[in-house]
Amino acid sequence: MKVLKFEERTLSTEKIFTGKVISMQVDEVELPDGKIAKRELVKHPGAVAIIAITAERKLVLVEQFRKALERTMLEIPAGKIEPGEKPELTAIRELEEETGYRANSFKYLQTFSTSPGFADEIIHLYIAEDLEKVDQPAAGDEDEFIDVLEVTVEEAEELIANERIYDAKTVVGVWYVKSLQFD
Amino acid sequence: MKVLKFEERTLSTEKIFTGKVISMQVDEVELPDGKIAKRELVKHPGAVAIIAITAERKLVLVEQFRKALERTMLEIPAGKIEPGEKPELTAIRELEEETGYRANSFKYLQTFSTSPGFADEIIHLYIAEDLEKVDQPAAGDEDEFIDVLEVTVEEAEELIANERIYDAKTVVGVWYVKSLQFD
Repeated sequence: MKVLKFEERTLSTEKIFTGKVISMQVDEVELPDGKIAKRELVKHPGAVAIIAITAERKLVLVEQFRKALERTMLEIPAGKIEPGEKPELTAIRELEEETGYRANSFKYLQTFSTSPGFADEIIHLYIAEDLEKVDQPAAGDEDEFIDVLEVTVEEAEELIANERIYDAKTVVGVWYVKSLQFD
Repeated sequence: MKVLKFEERTLSTEKIFTGKVISMQVDEVELPDGKIAKRELVKHPGAVAIIAITAERKLVLVEQFRKALERTMLEIPAGKIEPGEKPELTAIRELEEETGYRANSFKYLQTFSTSPGFADEIIHLYIAEDLEKVDQPAAGDEDEFIDVLEVTVEEAEELIANERIYDAKTVVGVWYVKSLQFD
């Protein structure tokens, strides 16, 4: 449900940067009281993330270096949506490329914004179950170096506590899997 | 725990933009296999968010327009860290400015990255309980237009389902409060 209360009307847009992943612009906006303000905005094509649960009820994580944070992180599989690609197909593709798994059960869970203060990035979250290892998985991006591991919910909670898991979508994923235990 | 597996060494940095909230740069990096790649990176000062729980066990939300997403959202109170400010003081300040509440119990919960693929923004998450309304709360940013509301966990879950709550930190907050019900 999209609501527009306190809407800020765009007066002008200054393009700053157009890259391969993100672009940047500064909008001049009119506030609800008629005053003028500037908004620094990052545009992103959107992404998917996958809560992949194995037959042993373990969560599949990928380990990769994140330049933005200058550290290696453990995350649920994720990737950005290619132009014209349906999010569910992105999710199926990224799961296979990053983990070598295909899921016989793929379910949409939730969409959320990651950084509403400055970026339009949204993540579509899926749950993948009944996983099968693919013999010859599709190759991912050639500049991605990834390890795959599988952890129990209790191990994932420890990894959150010691900050090896350190991003919002993965915290959401772990707490979601935990909540299933109570249903 | 900070790990550097698959580290990408910076070869050069091109500054693109320096703004009031974010800045942007493109780094050229050396990958683990010696190849070269570019990373488009947004720098952000970091933020805090507060899970504020009233005596009636309701969650305090703020409603504001988010230009990046061109829509109004319901979020837990949050704000960016000012230069030199300790995150806990940011949290106390933002809670008062945005909601008019002061908390007699303020507890650190977790830190997480919001968009590790392109931004260094991290959010320090706090839990505020034993709330008191301040007679003359400190004023917030003059370009922020905000309404405050208080919802039960069940109402918050409905707001997630219909996407009035639409950002990762607030989903984390709601699911955390829900998990307390099982402890």
